[in-house]
Amino acid sequence: MPQSPIRKLVPFAEAAYKQGKTVYHLNIGQPDIKTPDIALDAVKVHSLDILAYTRSEGSDEYRTKIANYYSQHDIHVTKKDIIVTTGGSEALLFAFGTIMDTDDEIIIPEPFYANYNGFSTASGVNIVPVISKIEDNFALPPIEEFEKLITPKTKAILICNPGNPTGYLYSKEEIKKLAGIVKKHNLFLISDEVYREFAYDGAKHYSIMQEEGIADNAIMIDSVSKRYSMCGARIGCLVSKNKEVISTTLKFAQARLSPPTLAQIASEAALETPQSYFDNVIDEYVGRRNTLISELEKIDGIKVAKPKGAFYCIVELPIKNADHFAQWLLESFDIDGETIMVAPAAGFYSTPGVGLNQIRIAYVLNNESLVKAVNILREALKIYKD
Amino acid sequence: MPQSPIRKLVPFAEAAYKQGKTVYHLNIGQPDIKTPDIALDAVKVHSLDILAYTRSEGSDEYRTKIANYYSQHDIHVTKKDIIVTTGGSEALLFAFGTIMDTDDEIIIPEPFYANYNGFSTASGVNIVPVISKIEDNFALPPIEEFEKLITPKTKAILICNPGNPTGYLYSKEEIKKLAGIVKKHNLFLISDEVYREFAYDGAKHYSIMQEEGIADNAIMIDSVSKRYSMCGARIGCLVSKNKEVISTTLKFAQARLSPPTLAQIASEAALETPQSYFDNVIDEYVGRRNTLISELEKIDGIKVAKPKGAFYCIVELPIKNADHFAQWLLESFDIDGETIMVAPAAGFYSTPGVGLNQIRIAYVLNNESLVKAVNILREALKIYKD
Repeated sequence: MPQSPIRKLVPFAEAAYKQGKTVYHLNIGQPDIKTPDIALDAVKVHSLDILAYTRSEGSDEYRTKIANYYSQHDIHVTKKDIIVTTGGSEALLFAFGTIMDTDDEIIIPEPFYANYNGFSTASGVNIVPVISKIEDNFALPPIEEFEKLITPKTKAILICNPGNPTGYLYSKEEIKKLAGIVKKHNLFLISDEVYREFAYDGAKHYSIMQEEGIADNAIMIDSVSKRYSMCGARIGCLVSKNKEVISTTLKFAQARLSPPTLAQIASEAALETPQSYFDNVIDEYVGRRNTLISELEKIDGIKVAKPKGAFYCIVELPIKNADHFAQWLLESFDIDGETIMVAPAAGFYSTPGVGLNQIRIAYVLNNESLVKAVNILREALKIYKD
Repeated sequence: MPQSPIRKLVPFAEAAYKQGKTVYHLNIGQPDIKTPDIALDAVKVHSLDILAYTRSEGSDEYRTKIANYYSQHDIHVTKKDIIVTTGGSEALLFAFGTIMDTDDEIIIPEPFYANYNGFSTASGVNIVPVISKIEDNFALPPIEEFEKLITPKTKAILICNPGNPTGYLYSKEEIKKLAGIVKKHNLFLISDEVYREFAYDGAKHYSIMQEEGIADNAIMIDSVSKRYSMCGARIGCLVSKNKEVISTTLKFAQARLSPPTLAQIASEAALETPQSYFDNVIDEYVGRRNTLISELEKIDGIKVAKPKGAFYCIVELPIKNADHFAQWLLESFDIDGETIMVAPAAGFYSTPGVGLNQIRIAYVLNNESLVKAVNILREALKIYKD
């Protein structure tokens, strides 16, 4: 199993705590946003006598409500198109297992969410990366680049929209291009849309499930983790109109019996979260992003892809090796006892040697902390030597 | 993905409900026993603001308490030997992924828990069955039978103790024999001990973790599902003193981020369940088992393996095809509008053609219902024709 790019820094972070340092965590995707009360309270008033299994595909009531939520986002599915999973992670694992055999290939624009590596290893399939560039804000690479990579073993293209780690939001036109290529080559298009609500500057998220003509190709991955700041619930779902995909995924779901029951209670209640909650959260993230970007732009010699969604951005630094820099920040640098932890971006690339001078920043800290954190980055770059 | 032996009967059960029939479910492992209040209440008074991830291996507090629980059962491990998983299911999947590569082999005494098939398919490994016999009460097959099956691809032996679907409780001597063979051939010994507390007639469960000299070979699978009647929590764990096993399993755990947080709160509280709860539950199951066996013994021409643990038993019927019989019970038979649903046992065997005339009965119904259910079985056998 490959290891996440952040894990190897953990011992250095622990050593920094022991030295009494304060560490600003720009490295993690655990939001500091409060979970909606309606979800937390639903668990407090549960009336269970027996904490029993639910249906393997998730309870009928919950799936019906999820379908209703999607219809508000112009995605028209029924409960029969939905399998509730233990987080988006399990939905991805089920998708890989359902549509691919050992040694099959899946094309993914890189940089991509590092855990895709773990799911591909566990499923015995190979990731074929297609490079998207910081100069283009990590937009969809030209379709010809995908076509060059298609072999008889290619079964699917996977995107994350909006993207972790890029913050890029694919346009309707880009989704249409992807639809064209998966139809032409009879591939699956998997779209990880767990950050759907996190689209900024008035941009509207366009789901692969809204695109006509690819009903049999499209598999959407979703999760309550980021939407309701409920990462610990471990509830996600796989959505597809392809009946064969759903029936095979159901067998994977049955083998692990059921998704967690208490978390389904919280997740079902979370669907009643008022729009004002999201409006506030989006305002907060846009504010943080703007703070982060304007502070970063004050630093000489760096390149930033301005994110249009999610809560990550990739930053290119005037250094050679971000792995080493990230470790040095924890081990050997501080301002008044404060330092930062960042995620070296090389771990988000599958192609060796790419992204070595890039880091991912998660803007899951409040504005004040972000200003301090970027100041630490600026001062550190002044004295750091590769 | 292979399908569970019970799933294909579900449409017939649904048709029976539609006809207004009452169906006694002897087919499922979902206990009707109440979950301890201490676990259910812990969730009601949670003080979470953010339903966040826990550590991928489970929280330190919870793992420390699990280790303490084991020490009361003469199993001496620390939190470092424990990875908390999303149910025993995930612990098995992690174990398979950790110790085996594609096309490796695992020897399992059959009949075995049908979902082992799903985990082996998902992991790309092959199950090699060794037959245990109803005439021997499903005791451990002779060690020579295992040795005959060992090839260079064999990586492990897996047992379920006490057994689902057999109800068999392995003796200390049997565990010692298994320890001998795994040491001799350098194999892993995986023991699924989720029914540990369910040992009857004064018999004491002997864990592979108590056996000296196989610390590096032994991997224990556990779960809160049956112990505290918390199947819907989806909390289990993998336990091993083999540091390499733990470090690889941790990578699988990190790829799926964390086990469910709310369920860990319930499971941690469940560890405080008083012994009186288990005493009552064991009394109840022993009573049910005694009722079931004495009622079954009134039926001519059947064979029963008297279970010493768990809450299942295998029954051999004077018929040819239990699959067909089980379907017929739902479709075409009733006494005053009541019928039964049983699990055909062929699905618990890997060898084709074995167990065709056997069923598994889960005694998860109260005594009165069990008497009625066995009466239905007796009357049905009088008129059923293969």
